[in-house]
Amino acid sequence: MTTTQTADHSDVRATNLAAVLSYLRANAPCSRAAIAAGTGLNKATVTSLVGDLIDRRLVRETQQTQNHVGRPATLLVLDGSAFAAIGLDVSARGLTVAAFDSAGGQLLRWHRAAPAADAAPAKMVAAIAALARRAVTTVRNSGRQVLGLTVGIPGLVSTDGSVVVAAGLGWHDVRLKADLIQALGNPPYPVMVDNDGNLGALAEHRYGPHAGAEDLIHLTGDTGIGAGVICDGRPLRGHLGYVGEVGHIQVIPGGPVCGCGRRGCLEAVAGIPAILDRVSPIGDEPDPDMEARLHELVRRAEADDPDVTKVLQEVGSHLGQGIAVLVNVLNPGLVVLGGSYATLAPWLAGPIDKELRERSIAPDAGGCLVTASTFGPDATAIGAVARSLDRLDAGRLPTL
Amino acid sequence: MTTTQTADHSDVRATNLAAVLSYLRANAPCSRAAIAAGTGLNKATVTSLVGDLIDRRLVRETQQTQNHVGRPATLLVLDGSAFAAIGLDVSARGLTVAAFDSAGGQLLRWHRAAPAADAAPAKMVAAIAALARRAVTTVRNSGRQVLGLTVGIPGLVSTDGSVVVAAGLGWHDVRLKADLIQALGNPPYPVMVDNDGNLGALAEHRYGPHAGAEDLIHLTGDTGIGAGVICDGRPLRGHLGYVGEVGHIQVIPGGPVCGCGRRGCLEAVAGIPAILDRVSPIGDEPDPDMEARLHELVRRAEADDPDVTKVLQEVGSHLGQGIAVLVNVLNPGLVVLGGSYATLAPWLAGPIDKELRERSIAPDAGGCLVTASTFGPDATAIGAVARSLDRLDAGRLPTL
Repeated sequence: MTTTQTADHSDVRATNLAAVLSYLRANAPCSRAAIAAGTGLNKATVTSLVGDLIDRRLVRETQQTQNHVGRPATLLVLDGSAFAAIGLDVSARGLTVAAFDSAGGQLLRWHRAAPAADAAPAKMVAAIAALARRAVTTVRNSGRQVLGLTVGIPGLVSTDGSVVVAAGLGWHDVRLKADLIQALGNPPYPVMVDNDGNLGALAEHRYGPHAGAEDLIHLTGDTGIGAGVICDGRPLRGHLGYVGEVGHIQVIPGGPVCGCGRRGCLEAVAGIPAILDRVSPIGDEPDPDMEARLHELVRRAEADDPDVTKVLQEVGSHLGQGIAVLVNVLNPGLVVLGGSYATLAPWLAGPIDKELRERSIAPDAGGCLVTASTFGPDATAIGAVARSLDRLDAGRLPTL
Repeated sequence: MTTTQTADHSDVRATNLAAVLSYLRANAPCSRAAIAAGTGLNKATVTSLVGDLIDRRLVRETQQTQNHVGRPATLLVLDGSAFAAIGLDVSARGLTVAAFDSAGGQLLRWHRAAPAADAAPAKMVAAIAALARRAVTTVRNSGRQVLGLTVGIPGLVSTDGSVVVAAGLGWHDVRLKADLIQALGNPPYPVMVDNDGNLGALAEHRYGPHAGAEDLIHLTGDTGIGAGVICDGRPLRGHLGYVGEVGHIQVIPGGPVCGCGRRGCLEAVAGIPAILDRVSPIGDEPDPDMEARLHELVRRAEADDPDVTKVLQEVGSHLGQGIAVLVNVLNPGLVVLGGSYATLAPWLAGPIDKELRERSIAPDAGGCLVTASTFGPDATAIGAVARSLDRLDAGRLPTL
């Protein structure tokens, strides 16, 4: 039996600081009175909480005044001058790093080619650490303190930040968090490692066009197919942190061999590498430039090349099968096609929708809308930033 | 964007009342000092909270003393004399009603044959209301106030308590909650309707041998196959309340026709009615006594009848396929085989485990243990009781 958590008055304060920050994130610039009205907190409490947030340089007053009726009120905005979060995405496409200040302003976004696919994990970890170090330096040179560094990986990440398996990277049991902390010299900010699907879901939940959706799944397939799940308003993690591993659900019994050794996995028939291999086989020489091959694929699809559109139609059906499983099990209100699936959405959406409707037991697919991500290839990096900012918005405030 | 919830001091009190009640539920009899030590609350707070709970007749002092060393302390136990919760299970096996007092003592447990399978829903609703009314009368005659009535249904239940579809009962769009409230004459206690899988999961989470497990799935298949999901410590509901509908995941493309009209659904190959139809076909005359057929099936399995053990082996493999999907998507630490699957577990467990290990992408099936429920056919009714008691333990206390 687990012990039920108790609460004290500092929890109340953290909860209410979080409410004020979230309100400002959605509505700034606004007055203390507007915050009180919007959050249901009384004005004296809001004044005290805002004072605290100003002291911590997370909020600042602005001279700007609200409309021109009545007495001008001093307005509040988020202050991004003191803190920033860093997110880093590791995929077969390369490394992407992004940093946003605590007000949501972008400080940097860089892309680097990854070491060759057959490079040892240690080489990749060194490349990740080098890129992270450069981003940290840039953030600090801007006068900001680093709130956190989160790294997204296309694979199983255990709760201690180790990568159990990332088939697309050829990784097994890489102690990424521990190695990174060492490579960065025990930094004062938290270092986190998370699954790319989970981070994509956080990006959609915080910044996407359907931000705040309570039941949302983000599906990505650039390396291995993975889903990030937000259910009843919270990101799901599961017993060991492995929620959302849909890539190895069997969709074609006896189908093509998958990287995992099984047959007919969703990943083997509908992952982006599998699609590219079917449409533009590259022989024995692995071509690292996935981007160029994808570009060519889209060009041919736009020209209605039947060899391409037929494959995309089939892939859409298989993805629809996989999404139908997610819909039956998790009843999301929204499924977001992320990564390169977003690019291919014009050809995938129709067959996905057809399968989804046929295979969902709930009428109208349980109210599920399927949509394409608007983040392009940066969703994971943005979600990684969001993870550190989510800690902030949950009331875990930094000290200056 | 949703507004983040704020907290006030009454939330703190509700949270702490809940912590004291939960501690007592697990550890009573115990002293105020033990509660303070176990919950981390200070003694003055515990004294005040316990006073409140005694006033509401949820806790009482007892003359019993703790061991014989030192000064005797007055001990506290849960008081079940003032309140009780009622749970009612509707399935193809019949109607089961249970009532437990707020201290967890059983007041009644009755089983009734259901109206014939082809009876109109209205007739079934009348039977449910009649049985509920009798249980309410019995609880009230014992001097207790009813905390809530929860009804479990093997089907899709929308958040407003309507049954969207329950194929095994032949129901479509039955406004069960509204109809029951009317039939019971607008009762003063809350009436809730929930999916049987969800309630089975609550029963395991509160009373099962692995009570308190944070990531648990309860699988039942007596009418339609359904799963109740507890993930990260919370029951999942989803966008419209349809989480856990695994019965119509396709396991055999082009397989046998399912009640839903699709082919090869898990329910059509591994549901209890499908198993019975394969092993002991009953011709054109539907036999309402599922219990007797199941008993005969077990007798033959125990006698190693190869016609039966071969079918159970196949069914176990298919269930393993379905459970592997749940494990890949939700990473549970525990899957509980409920209802009649628990009875058949000696024959199903081996093949389930084999498929699960082969099909899970996480090593060692993500740490998942598969076990049989110990509740027998009463899991849903017990879970329905637990749902009302969970409200109590969440700090929503009744007034006398």
